[in-house]
Amino acid sequence: MKLSTPLAVSFGLSTPIIQAPMAGGPSSQELVAACSDAGALGSFGFAYTQPEEMKKQSAWVRSKTGRPFGINLFTSPQPAPIAAGSQRGALDAIAGYYKELGLPAPDPVSAPYAPDLEAQLAAVEEIGPRVFTVHLSDLPEKNLRKLKARSILVGGSANCVAEARRLESLGFDFVIAQGGEAGGHRGSYLRDPYESLTGTLALVRLVVRAVKLPVVAAGGIMDGAGITAVLALGAQLAQLGTAFIPCPESGAPQIHKDLLLQETEDNTRLTEKFTGKPARGLANRFIREMNAANAPQLAFPAQGVLTGKLRQVSSKAGNPEFFNLWAGQAAPLSRALPAAELIAKLEAETIESIQKLKGIVHES
Amino acid sequence: MKLSTPLAVSFGLSTPIIQAPMAGGPSSQELVAACSDAGALGSFGFAYTQPEEMKKQSAWVRSKTGRPFGINLFTSPQPAPIAAGSQRGALDAIAGYYKELGLPAPDPVSAPYAPDLEAQLAAVEEIGPRVFTVHLSDLPEKNLRKLKARSILVGGSANCVAEARRLESLGFDFVIAQGGEAGGHRGSYLRDPYESLTGTLALVRLVVRAVKLPVVAAGGIMDGAGITAVLALGAQLAQLGTAFIPCPESGAPQIHKDLLLQETEDNTRLTEKFTGKPARGLANRFIREMNAANAPQLAFPAQGVLTGKLRQVSSKAGNPEFFNLWAGQAAPLSRALPAAELIAKLEAETIESIQKLKGIVHES
Repeated sequence: MKLSTPLAVSFGLSTPIIQAPMAGGPSSQELVAACSDAGALGSFGFAYTQPEEMKKQSAWVRSKTGRPFGINLFTSPQPAPIAAGSQRGALDAIAGYYKELGLPAPDPVSAPYAPDLEAQLAAVEEIGPRVFTVHLSDLPEKNLRKLKARSILVGGSANCVAEARRLESLGFDFVIAQGGEAGGHRGSYLRDPYESLTGTLALVRLVVRAVKLPVVAAGGIMDGAGITAVLALGAQLAQLGTAFIPCPESGAPQIHKDLLLQETEDNTRLTEKFTGKPARGLANRFIREMNAANAPQLAFPAQGVLTGKLRQVSSKAGNPEFFNLWAGQAAPLSRALPAAELIAKLEAETIESIQKLKGIVHES
Repeated sequence: MKLSTPLAVSFGLSTPIIQAPMAGGPSSQELVAACSDAGALGSFGFAYTQPEEMKKQSAWVRSKTGRPFGINLFTSPQPAPIAAGSQRGALDAIAGYYKELGLPAPDPVSAPYAPDLEAQLAAVEEIGPRVFTVHLSDLPEKNLRKLKARSILVGGSANCVAEARRLESLGFDFVIAQGGEAGGHRGSYLRDPYESLTGTLALVRLVVRAVKLPVVAAGGIMDGAGITAVLALGAQLAQLGTAFIPCPESGAPQIHKDLLLQETEDNTRLTEKFTGKPARGLANRFIREMNAANAPQLAFPAQGVLTGKLRQVSSKAGNPEFFNLWAGQAAPLSRALPAAELIAKLEAETIESIQKLKGIVHES
């Protein structure tokens, strides 16, 4: 038996599952290839990746599988260059952590703080993935037109009804309803992200009812029961991020994988102290202390550059206290399986959940 | 066709739906009777109700229907009496609103701030409802034993795995996993409620996996798709509060009903400024201003007494700015139907959702 929805068919998938793009490492080319090859949509999180590297990794995936994959970029506007003198508060707030790890004091960061978005978008056009999604904002109509002319299906994240409606009015092909449970960055771009934390169960239903676009559900989905739940809510695909982090193919640091597997409770927190925009991860010293102090920070993504060395050294040293352990609220349901096995299990569990539901309906 | 789960059977229900207890008015005797008579579990929110009145309303319901109903109480400990002099900050914070509504300045409040819990529990024993639930805490073992000896099924709210496990270890019969979407008071009693806002989709799954007790799901469920979703997650009953507020039988003020029916977006906020404990409701001036100012407040439930007159006058005048418009995050899915019609529709939608899911599974 197989699971199929119209959106899964148009994506070319054999199972209604998206491996969520996870910029900064977890969605490695190995993970993307393994997920796509298993019939789900493997997805690159290329927010911090230069165009040449995007092309190289995409070509690598194509050398491993002929199946479709996705690419995701962050499309929020870059801040104006921040003068070194204005960075003092943010530098002071993190200097102690640099010192604690035996690193030289951090220097002010210089623009640009991220790869050039137009060049990244041109690379997406050239690569021509089946699916392209944006996070943290929408996309100008001219870019959208060019991508769609390449037969790329384009989607965007919504944390509220207004964002979903805006994507629909711009001509997007589908919308990802990202519930409050989701790990990583909140996709909010029209509302205050802290006032746009509607849970997945509520948000998916609100979005499905508000727009005609097909809806992908994201946030807190870790197993077949969760996939069945969002399909019941009217979503056509389930996007899972945290569930794929412990896979051997994922590029997440080992300590990140290990901690996910040890969780028994939702110990996630939102913080904007790692990158400048709110994102959900396992609580650690950095999050607790920086949130409690409401420490000064640079605008996104400059803050991410500022904390870059700290995060890199902390993760490499297997020290979980000073880097971003992005995770959704259902992290305790994590399991360590190769991506293809996980996808097969998710599919079998979903079919089983649907069968079980049939047992609840009785002839009266 | 009918829907049935083991917990629905042991409750004596013909449909797996609980009308959530909503203290302070919405869960009127008329609503409880209508919901129970329609085959769901009508539930009294008797937190602020004196024992004699509890008995009177329960008897009224029994005169209308022979079907089972539930009673809920708040079991959090009462604060020590608060000296009048210590109430100055909290009084000053709300004095402007009293003035704006043409009311005399508020006076310090005197203990007790709520009915005597032991007397309320004795009334529950005497009434002997099929189901009794607690919110905001657990229940001492001696009380639990006495209630169970009366063949009352006893449940409690959990906002996290630890709370669910504690209820299980105490001998509760079932647990209500209250997700972050839920309207009204957060049930948290072992963790900081603001750090225990796991969404319904994630929380229900975490709780189902962590305890052997049957699980009721609450938070953001407004229609058959939502009920199907939580059944897929392993819950045996769905508890809906906001969905029943607009019913003609509900005792909520008309303006509360009207506003729910006008919502198109999740405009809810958490606030502890109405009662002293965090609860979710539609954002209004009181919530926005009091939260923004982080205004001083009395401990729960003394703050509720302090704001009582303001809330009463505001709601009676049809002014939505100064009383508690409790609502869950899926409030925009509200509809105005008599309770029995709503329940029939919820059941039909659930059956339809389950049938639709079957259409997603294909022979491969």
